[in-house]
Amino acid sequence: MSLTFAIAGEGPGGGRRGVLALPHGRVQTPVFMPVGTAATVKAVEQSVVESLGAEIVLANTYHLYLRPGHETVRRLGGVHRFMAWDRPMLTDSGGFQVFSLAKLRRITDEGVEFRSHLDGSKHFFSPEHSMAVQIALGADVMMAFDECVETPASWERTRDSMALTHAWAERSKAYWVEHRHEAPWAEQGPGSRAQGPEDAGSAGSGTLDPRPWTLHPSLFGIVQGGMYADLRRESALRLVEMDLPGYAIGGLAVGEPREVTREMIARTLEHLPRDKPRYVMGVGYPDEIEEYARMGVDMMDCVLPTRAGRHGLLFVREDPGDRASAVLRMNIGKQMFAEDRRPVDEGCGCMVCRRYTRAYLRHLFASGEPLGATLNSVHNLAFYMETMQRVRAALAG
Amino acid sequence: MSLTFAIAGEGPGGGRRGVLALPHGRVQTPVFMPVGTAATVKAVEQSVVESLGAEIVLANTYHLYLRPGHETVRRLGGVHRFMAWDRPMLTDSGGFQVFSLAKLRRITDEGVEFRSHLDGSKHFFSPEHSMAVQIALGADVMMAFDECVETPASWERTRDSMALTHAWAERSKAYWVEHRHEAPWAEQGPGSRAQGPEDAGSAGSGTLDPRPWTLHPSLFGIVQGGMYADLRRESALRLVEMDLPGYAIGGLAVGEPREVTREMIARTLEHLPRDKPRYVMGVGYPDEIEEYARMGVDMMDCVLPTRAGRHGLLFVREDPGDRASAVLRMNIGKQMFAEDRRPVDEGCGCMVCRRYTRAYLRHLFASGEPLGATLNSVHNLAFYMETMQRVRAALAG
Repeated sequence: MSLTFAIAGEGPGGGRRGVLALPHGRVQTPVFMPVGTAATVKAVEQSVVESLGAEIVLANTYHLYLRPGHETVRRLGGVHRFMAWDRPMLTDSGGFQVFSLAKLRRITDEGVEFRSHLDGSKHFFSPEHSMAVQIALGADVMMAFDECVETPASWERTRDSMALTHAWAERSKAYWVEHRHEAPWAEQGPGSRAQGPEDAGSAGSGTLDPRPWTLHPSLFGIVQGGMYADLRRESALRLVEMDLPGYAIGGLAVGEPREVTREMIARTLEHLPRDKPRYVMGVGYPDEIEEYARMGVDMMDCVLPTRAGRHGLLFVREDPGDRASAVLRMNIGKQMFAEDRRPVDEGCGCMVCRRYTRAYLRHLFASGEPLGATLNSVHNLAFYMETMQRVRAALAG
Repeated sequence: MSLTFAIAGEGPGGGRRGVLALPHGRVQTPVFMPVGTAATVKAVEQSVVESLGAEIVLANTYHLYLRPGHETVRRLGGVHRFMAWDRPMLTDSGGFQVFSLAKLRRITDEGVEFRSHLDGSKHFFSPEHSMAVQIALGADVMMAFDECVETPASWERTRDSMALTHAWAERSKAYWVEHRHEAPWAEQGPGSRAQGPEDAGSAGSGTLDPRPWTLHPSLFGIVQGGMYADLRRESALRLVEMDLPGYAIGGLAVGEPREVTREMIARTLEHLPRDKPRYVMGVGYPDEIEEYARMGVDMMDCVLPTRAGRHGLLFVREDPGDRASAVLRMNIGKQMFAEDRRPVDEGCGCMVCRRYTRAYLRHLFASGEPLGATLNSVHNLAFYMETMQRVRAALAG
């Protein structure tokens, strides 16, 4: 076991407050995971990500495989040491990016051949290769390699794709069982990690006791099945049979109406074990992550807070004094903010709202100053973190 | 008096260790001032600039005049409150940028007509207007409006330009004497400043006692005279007659050999009063700022640490254990650093060198990640700050 999940409280809608213990530390759930695609939460320095209270971040396998290369990251001690982040991490399987970013894909039962979006070079990902790459990166949680069906897709097409995902999940699991002890830190335990460069020899202190014979990355399966409740059920049941440490719901938030997303999540959660962490990938707006957490989703990730921030879109509460009021998006580039001395969100206590005015953020954005992207991203991440903290408090037993 | 300058120690080469007290606080000299062109030290958040030990930063009048506009900054409480920086600041006169960035300049005795480099709009800067803009911005130190002669320039051309600079310095001084109490904070004293947005009413605690009847920005004159020692002498003597709070040496580091820069500085310092701060504008490499500080220069500024950082050039010591050894520039984008687990500079204690490897910085730079520009700029600024700290220690009485 390299993962324990303890539920400390439950809410009326099925939501649960819990603690997920991973090799690199503990994570309070429900949790929102900031996305650090290329081993950096874009424009936000690691110590700031820590100060925001992020207990786990995600990195993208596809991006790190292409650049700097998973073997490089492995030789550098794994992605934690590479990016000097010693809290838990999760890597996706690369599947979603292969299907959304890469060019000229050719899919067989064996895997996916694709061309890099960076330089057009040819690559091949199989379930085994995705696992090998993820083990080299060495996150605490890795994801089974899945096919992401185009949307919309017919029931038949979705069923066939789902079957492939199940076959790939079996192969992912087999490879993981065989090789999970090969993560860069697995032999010594994460206690061997170090924050400073060139500090490999010092014995760190992990949040968990170092138990080298048991610590290794966990594998989560990914439920597919498109927008068909019967396929979602079948996919969940099939994956649960594999007895994996956790389960994700993939293939959502790909353009379907929000009601459909919620319905698919609800119909899938019914069939996932209550004692294991449940992760919805790639969602969502702040009100969505709150809703899904209250329904019983334990983990979520999304590029939205950082991507919106870089585009000058800032999340605020409609009534700043009521942190449960509606979520609005402020377009900070607007002229109306040019002399606005208020903080972005008058009820927000983040480092940006404590120090800077809308007028200053508007100036930075209008001037294309890099600090604008940073401050906007920090506020949005803080907004997400605060949202989840409030949800967790509401779910406390 | 809104400036006091106390010399606490002197070195054999003429260098002096001092304390410059300004309305927003005290500055240990010799000092290197990071450049915050558009009211932001590019890619570095204010609290990080503070933690680097920067006691004063510079902002560019030309840029802030064009965007967001000096009247906007004035209505927002001045540049300190605008950018939420409550330590001392200095603004240049806009002259250098008008001559280097703007288009279609037309120079008369009255001033300079130019077109914005942003949108081609037509503007006019006179000495009086430069002063008015700088008073609206409200830095602690403002600079007289000067003409920057092209380089190379003949003795006659340089003499005529210098004469114009002297006339403009007189007009700058006259306007400053008349209007210096109109800085946004001058009436209440800088104790009225506040870090937080919408916090204008609270009484802050300035480093100096609030003495509303005396606190206002100081004006420095700028010695010109090109690469001609006799003109530099004449310019210095002429400006000193004006009895300004401090003196700058302008028009250097514009392409001339380093020996000429040093010679012009040396020949000018001879004629500047020893009891007033002496500022060389727009220099330089770390070994240059050290050399000039040891010659008796008290203040310097340069975009180099941040600009070089954005281009992946990092300053390091040739012998990391000897902080006085030669300065090298490391091109972090090189393939040779791809798996280098060492910090950028093994003798540097900055937040970047404590946490991140060359391999990670190389990855960020090669991937175009914004964090790369931030971390490179932070290291370079730390390198400059450490250099000046070492020089100050050597000059301590």
